[in-house]
Amino acid sequence: MEACNRVIVSRMQSPVELIPRLAAHLVAAGGKRIRPMLTIAAARMAGYRGERHINLAACVEFIHTATLLHDDVVDESQLRRGLASANAVFGNKASVLVGDFLFSRSFELMVEDGSLSVLAILSAASSTIAQGEVLQLVTQNDLATTEAQYLEVIRCKTAALFAAATRIGAVVAGRGREEEEALEAYGLNLGTAFQLVDDVLDYAAEQERLGKTVGDDFREGKVTLPVLLAYAAGDEEERAFWRRTIEDQDQREGDLEHAMRLMARHGALAETVRRAEAYGDRARAALAGFPDGAERQALAGIVEFCIDRVR
Amino acid sequence: MEACNRVIVSRMQSPVELIPRLAAHLVAAGGKRIRPMLTIAAARMAGYRGERHINLAACVEFIHTATLLHDDVVDESQLRRGLASANAVFGNKASVLVGDFLFSRSFELMVEDGSLSVLAILSAASSTIAQGEVLQLVTQNDLATTEAQYLEVIRCKTAALFAAATRIGAVVAGRGREEEEALEAYGLNLGTAFQLVDDVLDYAAEQERLGKTVGDDFREGKVTLPVLLAYAAGDEEERAFWRRTIEDQDQREGDLEHAMRLMARHGALAETVRRAEAYGDRARAALAGFPDGAERQALAGIVEFCIDRVR
Repeated sequence: MEACNRVIVSRMQSPVELIPRLAAHLVAAGGKRIRPMLTIAAARMAGYRGERHINLAACVEFIHTATLLHDDVVDESQLRRGLASANAVFGNKASVLVGDFLFSRSFELMVEDGSLSVLAILSAASSTIAQGEVLQLVTQNDLATTEAQYLEVIRCKTAALFAAATRIGAVVAGRGREEEEALEAYGLNLGTAFQLVDDVLDYAAEQERLGKTVGDDFREGKVTLPVLLAYAAGDEEERAFWRRTIEDQDQREGDLEHAMRLMARHGALAETVRRAEAYGDRARAALAGFPDGAERQALAGIVEFCIDRVR
Repeated sequence: MEACNRVIVSRMQSPVELIPRLAAHLVAAGGKRIRPMLTIAAARMAGYRGERHINLAACVEFIHTATLLHDDVVDESQLRRGLASANAVFGNKASVLVGDFLFSRSFELMVEDGSLSVLAILSAASSTIAQGEVLQLVTQNDLATTEAQYLEVIRCKTAALFAAATRIGAVVAGRGREEEEALEAYGLNLGTAFQLVDDVLDYAAEQERLGKTVGDDFREGKVTLPVLLAYAAGDEEERAFWRRTIEDQDQREGDLEHAMRLMARHGALAETVRRAEAYGDRARAALAGFPDGAERQALAGIVEFCIDRVR
């Protein structure tokens, strides 16, 4: 991971000084680096002993960072990882363009690596992410969104990159299709669990002391699973509340707290966590065919870590 | 070009219906399609007889379209090609995300083609474009920008993609380094001429009847060559005018017309056109080593076409 961080810092450089400054704001703020960790652990678990996985892990993090920059512009977020978001500090314009730069740089790094299979996996994942983000935009403020549509959004916008990150680990290790698919299944299920937990955290009041903003999804009218479950279980008066706040975006003082009370009344957060746990189980099960050892334990540990955030 | 248009339309499809709708708004609005035309003509001139150049031309147009979508968000443009811009119709969020989609889709298409050389050229061009756009953002509203910095901006943001578009023509034809570099030089000089002319057109009143907005660059405080030349040649009063309008962005009724008068007084537009013509000459000269024929004449004709826009 240290080697990967060095690649990230050295390859986000540009003669245009604003680029590394803005990128550093986000990269150095230090996120969890889960995705590059997945590539590194997956490659080693699949028996890879070379060094290519380091640069490829950096590619994955660059794609993730680019999507974060664009997400924050799209969501008009003011906070990211407990700090002012890049768009809040440097403006939307610079965030869009530096996102484009990191995205391009990621492909330059992949080309240096030279594997068309890796390029295929990560370009497909990038296109899936963008489609997921647009789908999320389209379903925003729409309580008629189905659970299936919601799951499709999170599969595309989040799980696809987790799945690509782990699959390329098998690819650099030169493993066959079966191992590639097992690692992809691990990533896809982990990513889904991760996003379900994220969607719970947005309504978890105790997060506020962790420097996270609570209620962003609510304010933006995002139709996440906790909302869908509370809406489905609500009476007519509750449904009117959800329509006013999520669909009409007519929000007043105390509405977020009321939304949290309704979710508690119907166990919407607990049910979402249960779903996340089920995806987590499937992720762990996908590791069964690999030799037990430090890397497999690390990958199983990441599942725990993701879900523990909400416990 | 018809085959290329078909690829563009078929590959901008997505199950997320907003994506083709937004992309179609821009793509179907019809632009000049200069960049894909460059790839197609360059490949044929270099002796290529296959069909790969069609998809690669579509890749180039997708990258261009993605940058247009992001540019219009960054510039807060309301018009594009005489129609309401995509961001004006569909919002900034969708424009950012559909730009990301087209960009990813372009790389998917390149991976299908399977040439790492092409991937290297177009990923490097994409990264250069993003750096150029950031550099433009940094120099905006700054009359201390040098001509060299301005030329660097337009080399990166515009000429680099022209150069990549023509160079990959030589690559698919399997020509050696010398032909690749000649075609790259053609594209680089043509792209520079093209952008210089574009920067003149933004101050050319008669463009208004062509459905183009005039004065966008002025309103945004972009420091283009016509401004730099007029500022350098101006007296103290004129310089105060430029500082107020471009640097302080304090613009009043009649300022654009006054800016145009000052440019006319110092021949700033005519001088910029002369520079464009010199780059155009260099572009044509770069074609000298190729066999004379329909494609070479087409490529020479594109130089004329680009510069004629301002005559």
